[in-house]
Amino acid sequence: MTEKITADLCRQWDAQDLLAPLRSQFQLPDGIIYLDGNSLGVQPKAALQRAQEVVAQEWGTQLIRAWNSADWVHLPQRMGNLIAPWIGAKQEEVVVTDTTSINLYKVLHAALRIAQAEQPQRRKVVSERANFPTDLYIAQSLCQQFDLDLVLIEPEELADSLKEDVAVLLLTHVNYRTGAMHDMEAVTRTAHGVGIVTVWDLCHSAGAVPVDLNAAQADFAIGCTYKYLNGGPGAPAFVWAHPRHVNRFEQPLSGWHGHALPFSFDPQYQPAIGVERYLCGTQPIISMSVLECGLQVFAQAQALGGMAALRKKSLALTDTFMRLVEQECGAYGFGVATPQMHAQRGSQVSLTRTYGSGIDAKDSGAYAIVQALIARGVIGDFRAGGGPGSPHLDILRFGFTPLYTSFGDVWQAVQHLREVMQSQEWKQPRFHQRNAVT
Amino acid sequence: MTEKITADLCRQWDAQDLLAPLRSQFQLPDGIIYLDGNSLGVQPKAALQRAQEVVAQEWGTQLIRAWNSADWVHLPQRMGNLIAPWIGAKQEEVVVTDTTSINLYKVLHAALRIAQAEQPQRRKVVSERANFPTDLYIAQSLCQQFDLDLVLIEPEELADSLKEDVAVLLLTHVNYRTGAMHDMEAVTRTAHGVGIVTVWDLCHSAGAVPVDLNAAQADFAIGCTYKYLNGGPGAPAFVWAHPRHVNRFEQPLSGWHGHALPFSFDPQYQPAIGVERYLCGTQPIISMSVLECGLQVFAQAQALGGMAALRKKSLALTDTFMRLVEQECGAYGFGVATPQMHAQRGSQVSLTRTYGSGIDAKDSGAYAIVQALIARGVIGDFRAGGGPGSPHLDILRFGFTPLYTSFGDVWQAVQHLREVMQSQEWKQPRFHQRNAVT
Repeated sequence: MTEKITADLCRQWDAQDLLAPLRSQFQLPDGIIYLDGNSLGVQPKAALQRAQEVVAQEWGTQLIRAWNSADWVHLPQRMGNLIAPWIGAKQEEVVVTDTTSINLYKVLHAALRIAQAEQPQRRKVVSERANFPTDLYIAQSLCQQFDLDLVLIEPEELADSLKEDVAVLLLTHVNYRTGAMHDMEAVTRTAHGVGIVTVWDLCHSAGAVPVDLNAAQADFAIGCTYKYLNGGPGAPAFVWAHPRHVNRFEQPLSGWHGHALPFSFDPQYQPAIGVERYLCGTQPIISMSVLECGLQVFAQAQALGGMAALRKKSLALTDTFMRLVEQECGAYGFGVATPQMHAQRGSQVSLTRTYGSGIDAKDSGAYAIVQALIARGVIGDFRAGGGPGSPHLDILRFGFTPLYTSFGDVWQAVQHLREVMQSQEWKQPRFHQRNAVT
Repeated sequence: MTEKITADLCRQWDAQDLLAPLRSQFQLPDGIIYLDGNSLGVQPKAALQRAQEVVAQEWGTQLIRAWNSADWVHLPQRMGNLIAPWIGAKQEEVVVTDTTSINLYKVLHAALRIAQAEQPQRRKVVSERANFPTDLYIAQSLCQQFDLDLVLIEPEELADSLKEDVAVLLLTHVNYRTGAMHDMEAVTRTAHGVGIVTVWDLCHSAGAVPVDLNAAQADFAIGCTYKYLNGGPGAPAFVWAHPRHVNRFEQPLSGWHGHALPFSFDPQYQPAIGVERYLCGTQPIISMSVLECGLQVFAQAQALGGMAALRKKSLALTDTFMRLVEQECGAYGFGVATPQMHAQRGSQVSLTRTYGSGIDAKDSGAYAIVQALIARGVIGDFRAGGGPGSPHLDILRFGFTPLYTSFGDVWQAVQHLREVMQSQEWKQPRFHQRNAVT
């Protein structure tokens, strides 16, 4: 039996939270409970001044000279070095550049060339049907180019799918819909046991859960900086390759910043030694510079217990949310798509609603409930399922960022959810109008 | 005979310049004469406030909702529509996204697939040996993938190289080293006459010279926004495809923003109709938003005579610079790599120095002269040639942006050049130390 959770208890947990001082580093809008840091992290307060500096001082007064004087030329490496400790990478093993989709194209291309060179008889790439779509789209493009089959599985089919006809396994470590987390080390070991190269997408992992790429002996990894790392909207993404692979192949997006001597203006491409060969064109310097502010808060978190402390709080937040939904909203037909087991969970909780629970047989109500919560200032998001008959239900998605989410936030969010359901507020027509982005 | 150019005459030309009011829209640092807008354009004054807004208001208070409320989701199209009139494209034909190198990969891949599908016997891609290196690197990568030969030519060999064994012609409209400009319409006509698909790089053209992609019947084009368009350091690049091609092939960087319904989270890629299919991942929103400030000044320039007025002033600025170098610095061994003919010239002037003119037989002195000018606040840049024996000499490169460069700037810059040469100031050892980026 677990004790009943009360507002007082949540306050008490906040008072005991050693990470609580970090909340003041973030610009949390008044009246908002933000549970969407897994989509776009909040603004570190330092970001405004950093943006002003890079525009007014660096660009404004240094102009082209800022490539040297403000060291713009090494931003990809400097940002990569700040991310490295949070994903189990060493210094100089990570660069920040381009987007997740583009970095995935680079490393999946490299992984496929490795697989083809060593074991050309392998004709399959395995991924999850419920992987984030852009990963599947990039995989579809490369499978077409390499004349391979893309095999999409459900998570429970993973073990059976890792056979000797598979060239590359492409997985997202923490699923964007359900928050379910793979055991990276175990999966990589199994994959390597049958000669499969692994590519990991860390979009929902970096800064949210413990990741140790080197310990797992992973092959390639890419990820996002604008979710749990709070780098700013569309901040450039990161890319890592295991030292045993990094110099083995040229990635196909061979732009000048990936050249061994970018400013020699050599007409012949010669890839850089090291992860710099995964660079391509000139990076968006303002967005890239502002990213540093998010990463600096992580540097402060290192002194307060680092990932162990973040993970402990993250699990406490997601546990509390799940227990509170059961305690306060047990009557309203929610399910939980996120695994109960800590080892299988990221830093989000996904609630489900079956089709027909909403205003008609096809509707789950999930979209409207999320909209009604947003109208109250409780920001989570909606991810559509496959529709009636699909095993993928509609999802109400709530992300918990241990750097700034409090137990008080969790308490209040669930109170709002109870009120939205109890009052039937979510049935108002205005909450059923679909936006371009949710 | 031309009259002698004096400081008074330059002042007079500035007083008569109808575009002169636009100079006040830019943050020109005190004590600096900036002739490097062809590398990084100066900061429009509006950029600081725009950066503050997007960080503090849009990201800071709207958070994830800003994708709708601030219309982040349509930034690529909105920025593309602002660029379209300056390159002879129609509304909805251009998007801003990613980098020049990456966009080149997309369109060159598309162009090669078109060529292969229609005329698989063509096995060559032609470009210029002195094209910007990243273009050559991307072309090398794709020629390797498609098993084609990349043939690099000198500009004078162009006409002879356009034969029926060529699949794609990849040219930069205005050369980054010399400022020499191709006749896009004539070259495209010749290329099409023998069945060659054309890809144009407009990095040194957009906002600098008249471009009419539709009139030229060009096939594909890409370009940069941080040079003459003043979009900010590393601001995302643009991409255009002729309507007859835009929907013909899927480009290989098939990220979710290029999907017909990006927010449907469909596991199967389905490319968008129109140039949106050239989008890939989530864009750097701060850099992308600030870009608008540079483009808004162009909208103002439209009312002051548009490209005809900009071109007229640009040619007057480059003519004046060339004449003044001859008049004031005739004794110091400079050559001019930029064509004298207006129709063959972009908006820069490239001076040359032969090897051996510097401190030893291998040195031209060009690097040190540029550094000595920079120390005086006259910012141009240096581009290395191929060394002794090469037809490509070292270049002292000076860009003239008619939006903010004045005739007074040109006068003063040449006075500084004369003083640097007369005093032999450039021979100081400190000017011979090489930086990472110049």
